[in-house]
Amino acid sequence: MKATALRMSTLFLRTLREDPADADVDSARLLQRAGYIRKAAPGIWTWLPLGLRVLNKVEAIVREEIDGIGAQEVHFPALLPREPYEATHRWEEYGDNIFRLKDRHGADYLLAPTHEEMFTLLVKDMYSSYKDLPVTLYQIQTKYRDEFRPRAGLVRGREFIMKDAYSFTIDEDGLKQAYQDERAAYERIFQRLGLNYVIVRAVSGPMGGSESEEFLAPLAIGEDTFALAPSGKAWNVEALTTPAVEDVDCSATAAMEALETPDSKTIEKLVDQANALHPRQDGRQWTAADTLKNLIIAVKHAEDDEHERPWRELVAIGLPGDRQVDMKRLEAQFAPAEIEEANEDDLKAHPEFVKGYIGPRVLGPQAEEKEGIAEPVHYLMDAHVARGSAWITGADQEGLHVFNAVYGRDFEADGTVEAVEVRQGDMSPDGSGPLSFERGVEIGQVFQLGLKYSNALDLKVLDQNGKAVPVWMGCYGIGVSRALACIAESHHDEHGLAWPAAVAPAQVHVLATGKQAEVFEKADRLVAELESQGIEVLYDDRPKVSPGVKFKDSELIGVPLVAIVGRDTMSNGTVEIRNRDGSDSVAVPAAEAAQTIAERVAALA
Amino acid sequence: MKATALRMSTLFLRTLREDPADADVDSARLLQRAGYIRKAAPGIWTWLPLGLRVLNKVEAIVREEIDGIGAQEVHFPALLPREPYEATHRWEEYGDNIFRLKDRHGADYLLAPTHEEMFTLLVKDMYSSYKDLPVTLYQIQTKYRDEFRPRAGLVRGREFIMKDAYSFTIDEDGLKQAYQDERAAYERIFQRLGLNYVIVRAVSGPMGGSESEEFLAPLAIGEDTFALAPSGKAWNVEALTTPAVEDVDCSATAAMEALETPDSKTIEKLVDQANALHPRQDGRQWTAADTLKNLIIAVKHAEDDEHERPWRELVAIGLPGDRQVDMKRLEAQFAPAEIEEANEDDLKAHPEFVKGYIGPRVLGPQAEEKEGIAEPVHYLMDAHVARGSAWITGADQEGLHVFNAVYGRDFEADGTVEAVEVRQGDMSPDGSGPLSFERGVEIGQVFQLGLKYSNALDLKVLDQNGKAVPVWMGCYGIGVSRALACIAESHHDEHGLAWPAAVAPAQVHVLATGKQAEVFEKADRLVAELESQGIEVLYDDRPKVSPGVKFKDSELIGVPLVAIVGRDTMSNGTVEIRNRDGSDSVAVPAAEAAQTIAERVAALA
Repeated sequence: MKATALRMSTLFLRTLREDPADADVDSARLLQRAGYIRKAAPGIWTWLPLGLRVLNKVEAIVREEIDGIGAQEVHFPALLPREPYEATHRWEEYGDNIFRLKDRHGADYLLAPTHEEMFTLLVKDMYSSYKDLPVTLYQIQTKYRDEFRPRAGLVRGREFIMKDAYSFTIDEDGLKQAYQDERAAYERIFQRLGLNYVIVRAVSGPMGGSESEEFLAPLAIGEDTFALAPSGKAWNVEALTTPAVEDVDCSATAAMEALETPDSKTIEKLVDQANALHPRQDGRQWTAADTLKNLIIAVKHAEDDEHERPWRELVAIGLPGDRQVDMKRLEAQFAPAEIEEANEDDLKAHPEFVKGYIGPRVLGPQAEEKEGIAEPVHYLMDAHVARGSAWITGADQEGLHVFNAVYGRDFEADGTVEAVEVRQGDMSPDGSGPLSFERGVEIGQVFQLGLKYSNALDLKVLDQNGKAVPVWMGCYGIGVSRALACIAESHHDEHGLAWPAAVAPAQVHVLATGKQAEVFEKADRLVAELESQGIEVLYDDRPKVSPGVKFKDSELIGVPLVAIVGRDTMSNGTVEIRNRDGSDSVAVPAAEAAQTIAERVAALA
Repeated sequence: MKATALRMSTLFLRTLREDPADADVDSARLLQRAGYIRKAAPGIWTWLPLGLRVLNKVEAIVREEIDGIGAQEVHFPALLPREPYEATHRWEEYGDNIFRLKDRHGADYLLAPTHEEMFTLLVKDMYSSYKDLPVTLYQIQTKYRDEFRPRAGLVRGREFIMKDAYSFTIDEDGLKQAYQDERAAYERIFQRLGLNYVIVRAVSGPMGGSESEEFLAPLAIGEDTFALAPSGKAWNVEALTTPAVEDVDCSATAAMEALETPDSKTIEKLVDQANALHPRQDGRQWTAADTLKNLIIAVKHAEDDEHERPWRELVAIGLPGDRQVDMKRLEAQFAPAEIEEANEDDLKAHPEFVKGYIGPRVLGPQAEEKEGIAEPVHYLMDAHVARGSAWITGADQEGLHVFNAVYGRDFEADGTVEAVEVRQGDMSPDGSGPLSFERGVEIGQVFQLGLKYSNALDLKVLDQNGKAVPVWMGCYGIGVSRALACIAESHHDEHGLAWPAAVAPAQVHVLATGKQAEVFEKADRLVAELESQGIEVLYDDRPKVSPGVKFKDSELIGVPLVAIVGRDTMSNGTVEIRNRDGSDSVAVPAAEAAQTIAERVAALA
């Protein structure tokens, strides 16, 4: 297997001494400076020869592992008609985030951001029986998102390359198997790519079943925050659950009493009033952590069997006063419904709510049989609130709060909920210790779609009893161009890129440093020998470029192995072979150079 | 090199017994029926596993040959900003033929139909010296055209795959060399793809220098007509030139005389009048071929050094009355100017023109010193008109024509021009015999762009004297997905596809035909042996499918070599090996089957 060296005398390459003005992260800066990519428009990039080689290697690794689990490659168009995306409501849901266009006949099209609809329709078009399943299909394809602010080079672009796979199985067990297969392949892929990754449990709704994990490259440039436990397990903030809190013994807690707290509509003012007017018996100060806020939210449901139209439901959330509500986490518990804070009209419909002084008395179980409460709202308690704990909370009357209100003694809730922001130091869901928060770039996601798209697009097959049943689906994505950027982001130093061998544009960078014809002849011979052994060589054969520039370019380009044929090495008949980082430098006799390089290449593979 | 067989029991494939309703050509019909492609929208196709395999093989052949001439692969985005296309006027010139869209900020984008602008700007961005040249860059990439009526499956789609290459050279000689290199690579590519092709000289303007040839696959479904000479040379109709016609001896021709021809504004009426009133001396009838029409056209020039604005010039064209003017061929002679027939206002500005009776007397050289002719128009003679030939033509007076007007004796022109339609049987430009007209599909084009894009986008490099000079460019395209369709179009029979070995989805199709476990075990063993030899196998291992269906599917799918392991062959311990077309069928002992298949595969390669 002969390889053809890339000769820099003719290679379409121009390295840049200066950083591009708008490069906001190291990978974008170095990939441009080293001549791998070039900006065509914001978030839209051109691949130059070196960049395309790395991209092809990344794609090949992804392809090999995904083929290896029996997935079959197809290729969908990027330009797609509106209709399938209309059927799943995504045409609207994407808002400004997709590129829409019309053809000359006025028909609506989009540039696909993902292809759930098309895969679903393809399987529906081709398959009809449980005997056809399971099947997993994938593509490596160009995708589009009209990002408001493209950033970080290839990390968040508007045209980018993704591997997206979809599994189709007759039941949920099949889905779980397909999911595990993809997940395992992802681990192998990112390991082979030389990418650190953390598998982060992503949000899962309260209905269960829709398992989802994200593969994040832990990088400071990341936009995603994840919570890391001492056990090494990690969670999306939305997916974090609070470990069960132990009951508090309230046998010694005094009885609940309502006390005057004038002008105390905020937690801060309430704490001040409590300390001023009703100091604690134990001499300590009341703090926000002693108060229980009751927040009214509106849950916006889609139409369902009982409701012909989308409908709105009020829910009360109890949460410790020292924590902020996290609407995103909270919303995840109500998915697919959306939530917002209740508005004035919502509150007016419930005369029992006294703004700023809402208490458990008018909420949930307590409200069930109260006179004057036409339609009691559900009351959910944040998971941090322990049964038996005592609180200062609203007394449903202007200027009045109850003290020593004990959860489980004086009031109940209809259930618990994850309502508040998670903090550095909170206990991790697996109880292994306090959480820390890290930043990462999402490079992959595995997701159990369940029946969402099958139902929306009516993908059914006949089961063993001849009954039409919806197909279980999973979807699995890898940001291919983004992964490449993350490799560059995590493999470089101040001088340039330093590729892992598996994806480097060449296996060895041979530099001919010197002006004598003899140097070039010797380097030519070495390169010819390496070519005949099938070793991929980047050969700096530029005749009039100084050794200094060649060294600098070599460090910038970042091929893992460097071989120097120069005047110095000529005099004693040796070739210097070293790693990109300067380590393990050896001078070997010229006649042995190819052999040594081949051994090092094999060792790096 | 182990290969993994495609097992039809799990392969994502469903062949269709019926033709798709809207398949208008054989390739679209069979590629869909055999499960290679699926329609996503008009002119927009999804590649299924078998189709993607063939596409990858076609691309690999293109890549290998184009790499082989030293071109370097890059990859441009499909989504591009308006500005570069504005600079070359193509944003407007494309009219409805491109997809335009706006991003969320309202900026204009297009889905690129070709990338001349981007390649030009990239080289401008990276290179600055003659020392950097020559360079040829290419990509294999998805392109878009908003066709009014997509047709013929992959032949004329709206999203399609092209190889486009661009050469950059310091001078025209370099361009000619790059052009010849690409042209030679194209010949090798189409030969390897098993595609018949004709190299057709395409239109070239009168200014010379812009050589262009098209590679057409001669197919009845083609939209392009080309003219073929007995020598095998071929021309675009616009590029055809008329071989020089020999002078006619006019020594015996009577003197020109003006004769009454009332009501003879059309050639037909003129011929009638001439035969009625002025019969020929030799007893034959006058025909349209004896008349000379003089047509006034308007040439619309762009602004130039002498004209600040676009300007309009009238030109007279003399042509035999039995031939229609071919405005497209005629226009090609005036490129980049456009032409149209002169309008009433144009004619009014020349009182010497008597509509229907315009003669040479008021045109070109004859008009130069005529009184009352303020601005004589240029007079160009169609190349079919021989010097010395005699004509009936206008006498510039209502109801009067001149007879025996001899070209070269009684009147002259300012030059010759290709003005008329070419006919089946006309002499070919190379004089090798009469032309015939054929239809074909354009699968490639090589084009000397010259300085058009360099000038429009200011791509200059410093020459050896340090002077900034524009770069000479060529562009070279291959319709990759279209070529695949043409292979299918020219390699099939009534039963299905019949791929050339170089691009077939597999090298051999092994059919296990029978229900006994023994049959499948034997077939499994054969397939395992072929896999270990690196032979690409499509394996019909479907347990409950009848032999008849398997044979039909095999013919439909069209793998060139078929091996049958069945009950019949089992009884005598043989495997039947035959070509897709049923030819060269042999029964070989099972133990020798893999060896025989390997030999046949090697012979087909």
